[in-house]
Amino acid sequence: MSKRNVLVAQSGGPSPVINSSLQGVLEACFESDRIESVYAAHHGIEGVLLEELIDMKKQPMEEIRRLRNTPAAGAIGSCRYKLKGENSSDFERIIDVFEAHDVGFFFYIGGNDSMDTANKVRELANQRGLDLTVMGVPKTIDNDLGDEERTLIDHTPGYGSCARYWANIIQNVNEENSGMCTSECVSVLQAMGRSSGFITAASRLADPDREMPLQLYLPESNLSMEQLLDNVDNELIRSGRCIVVVSESFMTDTESQLTDGFGHVEYGASKTTAMQTVVNALNQHGFPVRGQATGQVPGVLQRGVSMHASTVDREEAYILGRKAVEFALSGVNGQMVTILRTSDQPYTVRYDHVPLSAIANSVRYLPKEWIAPSGIDVTDDFIQYARPLIGDSMPKVEMEAGLQRFARIKKEFVAKKLAAYTPCNF
Amino acid sequence: MSKRNVLVAQSGGPSPVINSSLQGVLEACFESDRIESVYAAHHGIEGVLLEELIDMKKQPMEEIRRLRNTPAAGAIGSCRYKLKGENSSDFERIIDVFEAHDVGFFFYIGGNDSMDTANKVRELANQRGLDLTVMGVPKTIDNDLGDEERTLIDHTPGYGSCARYWANIIQNVNEENSGMCTSECVSVLQAMGRSSGFITAASRLADPDREMPLQLYLPESNLSMEQLLDNVDNELIRSGRCIVVVSESFMTDTESQLTDGFGHVEYGASKTTAMQTVVNALNQHGFPVRGQATGQVPGVLQRGVSMHASTVDREEAYILGRKAVEFALSGVNGQMVTILRTSDQPYTVRYDHVPLSAIANSVRYLPKEWIAPSGIDVTDDFIQYARPLIGDSMPKVEMEAGLQRFARIKKEFVAKKLAAYTPCNF
Repeated sequence: MSKRNVLVAQSGGPSPVINSSLQGVLEACFESDRIESVYAAHHGIEGVLLEELIDMKKQPMEEIRRLRNTPAAGAIGSCRYKLKGENSSDFERIIDVFEAHDVGFFFYIGGNDSMDTANKVRELANQRGLDLTVMGVPKTIDNDLGDEERTLIDHTPGYGSCARYWANIIQNVNEENSGMCTSECVSVLQAMGRSSGFITAASRLADPDREMPLQLYLPESNLSMEQLLDNVDNELIRSGRCIVVVSESFMTDTESQLTDGFGHVEYGASKTTAMQTVVNALNQHGFPVRGQATGQVPGVLQRGVSMHASTVDREEAYILGRKAVEFALSGVNGQMVTILRTSDQPYTVRYDHVPLSAIANSVRYLPKEWIAPSGIDVTDDFIQYARPLIGDSMPKVEMEAGLQRFARIKKEFVAKKLAAYTPCNF
Repeated sequence: MSKRNVLVAQSGGPSPVINSSLQGVLEACFESDRIESVYAAHHGIEGVLLEELIDMKKQPMEEIRRLRNTPAAGAIGSCRYKLKGENSSDFERIIDVFEAHDVGFFFYIGGNDSMDTANKVRELANQRGLDLTVMGVPKTIDNDLGDEERTLIDHTPGYGSCARYWANIIQNVNEENSGMCTSECVSVLQAMGRSSGFITAASRLADPDREMPLQLYLPESNLSMEQLLDNVDNELIRSGRCIVVVSESFMTDTESQLTDGFGHVEYGASKTTAMQTVVNALNQHGFPVRGQATGQVPGVLQRGVSMHASTVDREEAYILGRKAVEFALSGVNGQMVTILRTSDQPYTVRYDHVPLSAIANSVRYLPKEWIAPSGIDVTDDFIQYARPLIGDSMPKVEMEAGLQRFARIKKEFVAKKLAAYTPCNF
C-alpha cells in the first residue's frame, strides 16, 4: 500500500481544547508508516479552497506538544465559511485540492455544520472515484451535538472546559456579589449557547448544594422578562442579593441581528446584548432593597481562557484526535469519532464512532427532565452528568516571562499546484 | 499599657488580593500581646454604623490563612456607603461604636475615598479625646492613588492582579481573534477604570514586542469614535484583524448613567456599555474586509478571578496589611502604609507610610509620557513599570472536589452594646 497524505482542518468557534484534538491527530499520524505528509488547512475549509496548506511535519515537536496548552484556534486557524450547495464549484474545488496533494485522509474537527460538510465531501469524493477516508472529530463548547439520550455522543470536547470556566467564575462572582451586595445587589452574566442551555446550566456546578442566590435563564425555559423581574424581586426580599445567568439569546430580537455564514445569529455582535437588556430592565424596575444590577459579558473568554481548561476535557479531546486516526487506518470511513459514558461513579468512558450523517445538522437541547420545575435551575441529574467533565485540579499552563507560552506554528504553506480560486461566498 | 481592641474594615470595589491585606492585618494583630479582640466590620463602614462586628479570633486559623487565596470581598463584606458630612450623626455614631467596643486601632482597607473617611474619623476621635490609632491600607485595581511621580505610592495592591488578568486574557483573545479573523475580525473588550487608563494599558503586557494588532483606548487619550473607526480600518487593511480595548468610559454619555454613593458613574450598570457603542459603530461602519466586530465585558471578573491573581501582588498586599499593624503598634497614626519602588531591575520595593490627608481624594492618571504618540498604545517605560507587578508564575488556588476552596468566615456578630441606628443615607 503506497503512503498517502493527511489533511486536517478545524471549523467554527473554537474551544480551550480544540488544539488537543489537533495534537492527537498529528501525533497519531506521525507515528504511522502509512502516512507521508500531514497538512493543516489554514483557517479551515477556506484554507482548502485557497490551497493554503501548512506542512505540520516541518514544525518542531515541542510546538506540537504545546498545542495541548494552547486555547482557541490561532494555531492553524478556523472559519465560519459555508460551502455553497452540493453541486457548487466549492465542493469540486475541495476534491481538486485533495487530488492535487494526494490527500487520502481528511480529518475535520468541528460541530454539527462541519460534520454535514465532511459527509458531503466524502460523498462527492466517492462519486469522483477518489480514494478518500473522511473522519469527523467532535468539537463544540455548546454540547449540542447528537441526541438527548446520548446514544451518539455523551458530551462534546470543549464543553467540559467551558463548564469549568462557568463553575469557576460563578464562585468568584458569588464572592463579589456577597461582598458588594449593599450597593450592587444583582450580578448579571451572559452565557453562550443560542438554543441549547448546557453552558448556562454549567453555572450550577459552582454551587451543587444550592447555597448561592443563583438563577439560570435557559433558552429551553423560554421565560419572560416579567418572570425574571419577579424571580429577582423574590430573591432580593429573601437574601438581599442575586446572581442571574442568562443565555445570550434571552429576550433578544433576532430579526435585526447580524448572522454568520450559516444563518445563525451572531450574538457576540448583538446590537443589544441580553445582558444589557436584563440590566436595564432591572435598574428601571426599581428594587425592594438598595443596590443596582451590573452586567458581565465574558464572550469569547468562555471558549478560550486556558487557565480554566478542564484536565479531563483536554485529555479526552486529545484521545479523540488519536482515535480518529486509528479508526481511519483500520478502515473506518465517513464516521465521527465519539465518546460514550460507561459509568457515572466512577466516571468512565469508551471511544467509538458513529456515522457523520447521524450527527450532521443535529441540535441537542438540555433534556426537559434536567430542568427544575422552577424553570431557573437544573436538577441533580444534570449535576451528576456534568460534574466529572470539569475535572478536579487546575490545568497546567506553561508560563514564560510572566506570559502564557502557546504553540508557535509556522505559517509556511506547501507549494500550490492549482490555479488560484475564488470561493463562491467571498 | 492595657490591651485594646482592633477594628478592621474594607471599602469600595474589591480586588483579587484585598483579603491578603486582611490576612496580614489579622495575623499581625493575633501575634501582638497589646491587642485583645480583633473585630471585622461586616460590609465596611455600614457594619460599623449598624454595630455588626465579626469576632475574628473565633475563626479557625486555617480559614484566616485561606484568605490569601480568596478573591473579592465576600469574606467580611465591603460597601460603597458615603458617610454624610463631617458633623453628621454618622461620624458621631462611628466614634460611639468605637468607644463602646474599646477600639484602640482602626485599620481601613480601601481607595482614595476610604482614606478621606479614615482621616475624618481620626480627626473626630481626636476632638472627642478618644485614644484611637487610624491606619489606612491601600487597595484598588485602578492604581489611581497618589501622585504621578509615585512619591506617595508606587502602585496599589490589586492592580498587579488586574493587570495580570488583562495580560492573560489578551493573549487568549489574540489566539481567538487570529483563529477566527476571517469571520470575526475585530474583538472589542471593555476595561474598568473610569478616568485612569492603568487597567486598559495593562493589556499591552500581553504583547510587549508589539506583534498583535492591539489598540488601546485610554481615558487620558480622549479619542473620538471617528478616530477609532479610522484606526481599525487601517489595521484591517494591514493585517485583516484587530483587538480593541476600550475604557468603560469611552464615548459613554455620563449624564444619563446611574451613580454610586460617591457620585461616581457606575459603569457596571451602564444603560449602554462602551463595548456596545463600539461594536455597533464598527458593525454599522462596514469593513474593508469580511468579518464582524464582537464584544466582551469582563466586568467584575477582572477584579475577582483568583486564577489570574499575581503572586507578587498577593505577597505585597499581605505585607502591607502586616506593616500597617506594625507601624500602628510603634506609634504611627493617621497614615496610610505604602509601597515604594527602589529598583526596576531587579524589581525591589520598600514599605513606608504617608499621611492619610495626602492620599485622601487624590486621583492619579496614566502619566502623559507613558502614552505613545499614536494615542492608542503605551510606551516601553510603562511596560518596565508594570511588568514586575504581574509576577512570573501561576497563583496557587486551593481546589476541593473540582471547586475553588475559599475562606469561610462565620458571620457571628459580637453582642451589640448600643441602641439601633439608621445610617443617614439608608
